[in-house]
Amino acid sequence: MKNKIHSVSLKQTRCEDKFWSPYQKKVVDTVIPYQQRILNDEIPGAEKSHALANFRIAAGMEEGEFYGMVFQDSDVAKWLEAAAYSLWVHPDPELEKSADEVIDIIAKAQQEDGYLDSYFTIKEPEHRWKNLLEGHELYCMGHMMEAACGYYEVTGKKKILEVAENMADCIASVFHEGHYGIPGHEEVEVGLMRLYQLTGEEKYSKLAAYFIENRGKQKDFFHREKENRDFEIFGMDPDYLEYNQSHAPVREQKSAEGHAVRAVYLYRAMADLAAATEDESLKQACEVLMDNILQKKMYLTGAIGSSGEWESFSKDYDLPPDRAYAETCAQIGLVFFAKSMLELEPKGKYADIIERCIYNSTISGMQLDGKHFFYVNPLETNPGLSGEVFGMKHVLPERPGWYACACCPPNLARMILSIGKYCWSESEDTIYAHLMIGQKAELDHANIAVETEYPWKGEVKYILTPKTEEAFTLAVHVPGYVSEKSLTITINGEAAGYQIKDGYAYICRTWGAGDVVQMSFPMEIRKMYGTVRCRDTVGCVGLMRGPIVYCIEGVDNGLQLQALILPRDSKIEEHKETEGALAGTVTLTMNALREADSAELYSVNAPERTPVTMKAVPYYIWGNRGLGQMRVWIRE
Amino acid sequence: MKNKIHSVSLKQTRCEDKFWSPYQKKVVDTVIPYQQRILNDEIPGAEKSHALANFRIAAGMEEGEFYGMVFQDSDVAKWLEAAAYSLWVHPDPELEKSADEVIDIIAKAQQEDGYLDSYFTIKEPEHRWKNLLEGHELYCMGHMMEAACGYYEVTGKKKILEVAENMADCIASVFHEGHYGIPGHEEVEVGLMRLYQLTGEEKYSKLAAYFIENRGKQKDFFHREKENRDFEIFGMDPDYLEYNQSHAPVREQKSAEGHAVRAVYLYRAMADLAAATEDESLKQACEVLMDNILQKKMYLTGAIGSSGEWESFSKDYDLPPDRAYAETCAQIGLVFFAKSMLELEPKGKYADIIERCIYNSTISGMQLDGKHFFYVNPLETNPGLSGEVFGMKHVLPERPGWYACACCPPNLARMILSIGKYCWSESEDTIYAHLMIGQKAELDHANIAVETEYPWKGEVKYILTPKTEEAFTLAVHVPGYVSEKSLTITINGEAAGYQIKDGYAYICRTWGAGDVVQMSFPMEIRKMYGTVRCRDTVGCVGLMRGPIVYCIEGVDNGLQLQALILPRDSKIEEHKETEGALAGTVTLTMNALREADSAELYSVNAPERTPVTMKAVPYYIWGNRGLGQMRVWIRE
Repeated sequence: MKNKIHSVSLKQTRCEDKFWSPYQKKVVDTVIPYQQRILNDEIPGAEKSHALANFRIAAGMEEGEFYGMVFQDSDVAKWLEAAAYSLWVHPDPELEKSADEVIDIIAKAQQEDGYLDSYFTIKEPEHRWKNLLEGHELYCMGHMMEAACGYYEVTGKKKILEVAENMADCIASVFHEGHYGIPGHEEVEVGLMRLYQLTGEEKYSKLAAYFIENRGKQKDFFHREKENRDFEIFGMDPDYLEYNQSHAPVREQKSAEGHAVRAVYLYRAMADLAAATEDESLKQACEVLMDNILQKKMYLTGAIGSSGEWESFSKDYDLPPDRAYAETCAQIGLVFFAKSMLELEPKGKYADIIERCIYNSTISGMQLDGKHFFYVNPLETNPGLSGEVFGMKHVLPERPGWYACACCPPNLARMILSIGKYCWSESEDTIYAHLMIGQKAELDHANIAVETEYPWKGEVKYILTPKTEEAFTLAVHVPGYVSEKSLTITINGEAAGYQIKDGYAYICRTWGAGDVVQMSFPMEIRKMYGTVRCRDTVGCVGLMRGPIVYCIEGVDNGLQLQALILPRDSKIEEHKETEGALAGTVTLTMNALREADSAELYSVNAPERTPVTMKAVPYYIWGNRGLGQMRVWIRE
Repeated sequence: MKNKIHSVSLKQTRCEDKFWSPYQKKVVDTVIPYQQRILNDEIPGAEKSHALANFRIAAGMEEGEFYGMVFQDSDVAKWLEAAAYSLWVHPDPELEKSADEVIDIIAKAQQEDGYLDSYFTIKEPEHRWKNLLEGHELYCMGHMMEAACGYYEVTGKKKILEVAENMADCIASVFHEGHYGIPGHEEVEVGLMRLYQLTGEEKYSKLAAYFIENRGKQKDFFHREKENRDFEIFGMDPDYLEYNQSHAPVREQKSAEGHAVRAVYLYRAMADLAAATEDESLKQACEVLMDNILQKKMYLTGAIGSSGEWESFSKDYDLPPDRAYAETCAQIGLVFFAKSMLELEPKGKYADIIERCIYNSTISGMQLDGKHFFYVNPLETNPGLSGEVFGMKHVLPERPGWYACACCPPNLARMILSIGKYCWSESEDTIYAHLMIGQKAELDHANIAVETEYPWKGEVKYILTPKTEEAFTLAVHVPGYVSEKSLTITINGEAAGYQIKDGYAYICRTWGAGDVVQMSFPMEIRKMYGTVRCRDTVGCVGLMRGPIVYCIEGVDNGLQLQALILPRDSKIEEHKETEGALAGTVTLTMNALREADSAELYSVNAPERTPVTMKAVPYYIWGNRGLGQMRVWIRE
């Protein structure tokens, strides 16, 4: 691959977008400070975190016992990464000072040899690396590497980066071809690949490769590990190999299996490694896994990991809307994986899945107040059943407050704050524009201002200020739902010459300052049908407009949403909302039929149908207007 | 109630029915001997039972350890009860000898004071009565009382009845107003009421009343019990009070809650007690509970206990077809409960639910070979998902062999063999004919020969030989699905005068020998619609003909049954099967539409529909022709 594609730094982008800027402001103003107070145990009534205290104790700065989950350290790492991006989005000397103080504590908690894990350091130093299945040491360190790269990228401060590098060296001293080991929860592979991408040091990509390539090579590893240790953390089954994707070497895995977050973190690192090493067969392994997800294991909203057991992928086409797990973090991980795939090969389907996730099943995890979060992102909720009956206990009909296991909120925070990064890749001769998000970007070939009202309008302007007089290509992602013939691309108001390939419009020319590329396409409402292989969606339609998936809610449509039917010929009208929680969104109204309620459990009489008006709202905003039913799939 | 209704003895009926006699023969020829060998650990490869060995050890007849579930004794009791009925259906001196030998062992295992429980006698005699939540002593003894009554009724031999009476006295010596206690699994209440019905001894109904009335009176009982004991059996949660219906006094319970088998056993005993004591408010409590089941918690097949967790009732209208628990024993218990309700007040709805259960969700538990059984009777199975994915692990797509916990097969055996009992009740002036099952019955007022090809034909003849010259009433149940105007009742070929009340046609006259009452009604195929309150059945129809619920199976209809649609105007044709597993049944064929398969997970194109022929077969016979999908609810 002589014309290698690379990602851009967050610092090359400055988001100014009607959709995303308010989300970023919410995260900066609310989520980051709130989580900071959580980590410091300053929120009265909130479940004790103790995460920073753990580091202070490990650092010898105070006395005490470890408290929390074995992976409590990762809360601090994720916050630090999100805080770094927050400092870019909205510089804040006080936040930076707090972050520096946190880094000081972390650095002090790091052991002589580079080891960093407050749980084992405080509680069981003799058990270091002895329970890779459950211990989460590598997981926590991986997150710390990500935080370090992010913090260094934004602030230029090296302290936490050095901590990360020392950690990596420590890990390398333990795990090498003479000593087999793989983590029970993948993430260190991601952290190491980020270290590699930032520093160019191959020792990091090689260590990542060690963990990636060894996975599934010794299938009895966790079993033997358990036999050889005399302590437990969770009591996990060491033989449920699919759970952590160790059931086969990664190149032999043909379907996405097991814990969804673990899976997509692994796949992302695999894609990053394949890009770094130009490894064609590893790339193909990634493609097979991604295709299995996209073609057989993904909800309409982009959500993955449908099984309510083990937060895992289920079998192909088993996508129950009302019992979905669909963890926010899994979708975020899928965004990361898809972005890495784009840098292996720019295919529209990867940008499409990023769109599908970021506009639907990721941000659905956060209440508009920034203080309540879902892990689980179902496509149907039924108060009275959801959260209560067998098979639905994990499906909450309302977002609760911060969790004791706080993985999703900071993960969402970092995705939202770094959204600019996902918009671009560059190669020697091409700028790839993956997403339509308003911003100012300073890329290698050009500065580009992006103006758009996407996802509500099918229009985007790229205003270029080239940095070179040589011709280069702007490759603009054309969403998969846009037909070629409905697409218009102009340059400076005149029809542009372009070539469509794999979901991207390639425009090659010598650019002048102020050149405006405008892409327009109609925003049509689409009725989506699931394949009949999905038992749960037959006879139903899902509504989409652009990348937005819609749902119907009780607050607009009354009780028993399952009684509502959308006739195939019903005309759907759009409405731009201006007030309340829905302000700024496009909602849909349509003629529908409602089947009559009946107290008779079974009857020979088909329920009568009466015409009603039905309103659908963007899925991501559901549950912001009180408790009620919600459904994405509407009977047709 | 001066004109009290009473049940009839099995010995008053002699089944000669085209539908039931082959089932009885299967049970006599296969199930009873097979279970006998299981109990004696004579089946190579089958899971060890040890149930009779436990009794022998407790009796001091051999050395050894207790083996099996804490309620292993009940396997012997249920077998003995079924064997008793088998001796009536098909006298067999060898079986009777074996049963007598079993009884000898049981009698020897009974302790001086009447206590009988091999688990506690062998393992933990000091823990007698100390773990009523989990110990199942009263449950096992209740089943032994039922067996005793059955065996005495059929054989006239008193030995096991005396064992039962001694047990009851032992229980009464422990549980009385000075000492609170209720069993964690109801059943002793049923056994005691049967003892009362057989012997007329009020001490038994009073002891039953003690257990029934005390239930839910001390809500902390199981909690305190657990605190005061130092041993566990299962580690059950003592505070999940709904599980064993101890969340409220029984008269205050308004909905069926908790473990479905426990619940209906309790309700049956309540109904029996209400009948015995003419207790109007207890009768009303039974009616409220039955109505909750019939109106909100019952599958189309009559199955109950929909939750895959704790084998329990779920919330109202939560009746998922593919995740049903619907334990065979729960439906059998519902048959018993409904029969007891009929003796409180002859209402057609109770006979209807008996019909619905006996022709559908009870016998569905048994393979036609009599050697494979379901606990769980789902209304939809999907091989590859059923039994494998979250929420469906308990739903098997094929009947396995005998279970280690063998509650359902002998329960089904006793129901099938004693089916004649459920056909009749009598009062001072009325014979109630609840079911249409071919037989010769010797009732108090008359001998009646019943001739019918029900459930396949809507025609039944009652040929009476009265035993009295005084007028009396024959009250014939008219199935709830038969309209009054389509009903014809003749006497000796001429239109009869009758009055319909609450689902029964009352014919009062002075009867002559050989009088023939003939009831006829059209057997129409009914499309059944669930209320829209059930999320799982909206947009679907279930097919019924007479009491028979139909399903579609993969063997007849190919893959992806969820792709099949039955148009509302489709004409359904009947076909009398003559060959193979379906021989003798009426199957249905109809024009349907099949939606095209698609490898595309989500598409803007609705699947195309092509006409196909669809075949539906009786639900109870599903799974007898190889592994495939099955669905009761068909998309309309």
